[in-house]
Amino acid sequence: MRNGANSLRIRDHNRQVVLEAIRARGGKSRAEVAARTGLTEQAISKIVKRLLGEGLVVEAGSGEAPFPGRGRPPIRIRVNPDAGYAVGVQVDRDEISAILLDLVGGVRARVKEEAPGGPLETVGRVVRMVEETIEVSGVDRTKILGLGVACPGPLDPVAGIVHEPQGMPGWKEVRLKEWLEERTGFAVAVDNDAVAAAVGERWTGKARGVRSFAFVYLGWGIGAGLFVDGQVYRGATGTAGEIGHIPLDPDGLECECGSRGCLTRYCSPRDVARAVERRLRRGEASSLAVSHEPEGIDFAAVSEAALAGDRLALEEIEGSGRMLGNALLGLTNALDLEMVVLGGKGFGELGDVYMREVRRAFDERLLYRDRRRIALEASEAGEDAGAVGAASLVLHATYASPLSGPGMPSREEPVKQEPFLGHPG
Amino acid sequence: MRNGANSLRIRDHNRQVVLEAIRARGGKSRAEVAARTGLTEQAISKIVKRLLGEGLVVEAGSGEAPFPGRGRPPIRIRVNPDAGYAVGVQVDRDEISAILLDLVGGVRARVKEEAPGGPLETVGRVVRMVEETIEVSGVDRTKILGLGVACPGPLDPVAGIVHEPQGMPGWKEVRLKEWLEERTGFAVAVDNDAVAAAVGERWTGKARGVRSFAFVYLGWGIGAGLFVDGQVYRGATGTAGEIGHIPLDPDGLECECGSRGCLTRYCSPRDVARAVERRLRRGEASSLAVSHEPEGIDFAAVSEAALAGDRLALEEIEGSGRMLGNALLGLTNALDLEMVVLGGKGFGELGDVYMREVRRAFDERLLYRDRRRIALEASEAGEDAGAVGAASLVLHATYASPLSGPGMPSREEPVKQEPFLGHPG
Repeated sequence: MRNGANSLRIRDHNRQVVLEAIRARGGKSRAEVAARTGLTEQAISKIVKRLLGEGLVVEAGSGEAPFPGRGRPPIRIRVNPDAGYAVGVQVDRDEISAILLDLVGGVRARVKEEAPGGPLETVGRVVRMVEETIEVSGVDRTKILGLGVACPGPLDPVAGIVHEPQGMPGWKEVRLKEWLEERTGFAVAVDNDAVAAAVGERWTGKARGVRSFAFVYLGWGIGAGLFVDGQVYRGATGTAGEIGHIPLDPDGLECECGSRGCLTRYCSPRDVARAVERRLRRGEASSLAVSHEPEGIDFAAVSEAALAGDRLALEEIEGSGRMLGNALLGLTNALDLEMVVLGGKGFGELGDVYMREVRRAFDERLLYRDRRRIALEASEAGEDAGAVGAASLVLHATYASPLSGPGMPSREEPVKQEPFLGHPG
Repeated sequence: MRNGANSLRIRDHNRQVVLEAIRARGGKSRAEVAARTGLTEQAISKIVKRLLGEGLVVEAGSGEAPFPGRGRPPIRIRVNPDAGYAVGVQVDRDEISAILLDLVGGVRARVKEEAPGGPLETVGRVVRMVEETIEVSGVDRTKILGLGVACPGPLDPVAGIVHEPQGMPGWKEVRLKEWLEERTGFAVAVDNDAVAAAVGERWTGKARGVRSFAFVYLGWGIGAGLFVDGQVYRGATGTAGEIGHIPLDPDGLECECGSRGCLTRYCSPRDVARAVERRLRRGEASSLAVSHEPEGIDFAAVSEAALAGDRLALEEIEGSGRMLGNALLGLTNALDLEMVVLGGKGFGELGDVYMREVRRAFDERLLYRDRRRIALEASEAGEDAGAVGAASLVLHATYASPLSGPGMPSREEPVKQEPFLGHPG
């Protein structure tokens, strides 16, 4: 990390553990941090003193006295939101959004623009948008810890190379991390949009502490970020979470992957618009038939009509939600997830319709529904899920060891380590 | 473990590491074991000496000389197959099979019987069959390390309690582990049939060293055992791998789970027989129409007719394979698996037809098929996959720390452990 980030880098492991424990909602007393981390109160006091000196944490009022009426209540420690910031950028086929988060996940600035298409133009625009968020937020540039970029996959998150995403002509083996590091001077983390959204949700949203969940990200296309047993799950070649090509109907629409009835053909905003267009061409009644030429229908128009009560538009959105429900039902039955989160701009104002259809699928048809309950949530980050997730990649790396580091057990306590004996050669 | 197993229990961790390294196919020289484990040759020699003394390993001829013509070739060490055994039992709705494995995974005895139904009768029959495998094999009873039982889920593998599997009337919260330990005197491990088959395949079959794969187990019903990033993945409530209720056709047959078009309706042997029955009732031509009353059709009859070239029977099996292909295509796209293994008695003699259909789905429709290849394999254990897997649960526990232990990194090298900072409360 450059740009003054070095002063914030936490090399000492126990300090990371303490900082993460303090980050918990509402602040923590030194005694609570000690209990949570298993370190002695003496050690905690020493570390907290250093963190206070560096401005990373602040003393923030007092908590409850352990025995009311007896003794002074303990002082609570909080992370200082202004000790550092991260910029997160979501690059999608049609739109780029940038956001600036403070160290506790608060949004300080938000900028949105149309995507210019090719990779070179995109990089230029991202660089400009990053500067704009910093300017709008008014924060000290030297306190920016890094830049996170969420992008459609497939991509290599380590090298920061975007392979060749569907629907992004001109993008082929784009060295996004390298280019952006050169142009911005920031350390850059690149990840799949759905994975970034999942990391963001686990780090700061509704999936805190959830071991196995899917973040279903609806942007230009549909994908999922998966956490499995407390770790990001990327799969054998890094494409895990590609739920868009779950086949749902052997007689369904053809898909460019070679299958029929793939989820994406029912759920991507483009395909929903096309389905409405087909019905209008058949002469079906809709307010859209009056206001638009069939070929002029886009998802925004369908969405607006559905919200205004147009039956045909609403039917298509509901049908889309039902197919999403079927796909997530199959995925949840197969993976026994604890939680499914929906987010991304594709859900937009129609998120409630999708939530209702998926909830109905879970309530009426989930296997073992008398024994378990799957939490179904709408992401708090809403349309910003990708950009917030991208910034979270940076913040998380600052606080903690990587969420998805190999061999990293998902507990807070120190773990007695035994070598795994693995497979014979 | 009782019954003399104590002498075999490996308390010292390095000994486990060494034993596991020696278990690799073909035997290993002391130098190779040292290179593999990262321990010194001196340490290896000391441990191997003790293992030789206990009869756990044997010296088994010599390997290649490192420089031909110069010096004596090093002596290879092998695990002694007769140092210990495990009995594995597969309990399915219609059949129980028991098997006795030696310490390197060789089958020493095999017994099969019809399932008697209720849990009490089943336990009685299992006890008798366990004794029979020991008798048939002629091995020393005191060298049996334990009994593994593979059973349809859902179940609790820690407590060894079978909750309430579909299609097994009278089974409800059955304390299978406790009952069997009492009746046999052996230590008993109980697990889901598909999970057991997956552990067996990774331990001794084609999935050795594969980090993420699904073992698709076709018995009375269909299920999968999942390995994710080198660990058994059980899900939030222990039901991960329930692929039978992936919905594949919104207009498909109703399923008792409340959905339509679930995989199990196309793939379970019972449903394949029913589909043939429906077509015969409609008067379609088939050799089965001559030989059977429609209601007398079972999967064995369909299977036999298909193998004899009956078009209708073959069409149904192929259709079943196509739907399995669709389900596994969706699962593999979503999870980016390295390998899919098919096994279990349901595939039986028609395994090739299923393999062909699934392979076609992967070859023609898998996402990113130009960038990756999914290994599709038939389990070497074939119809014995469940019982071999059950026995593997015991053998694996003898050799190694549990495959699915929480926080167990899937590497062989000693891992520098850093506490995971996890989620804030």
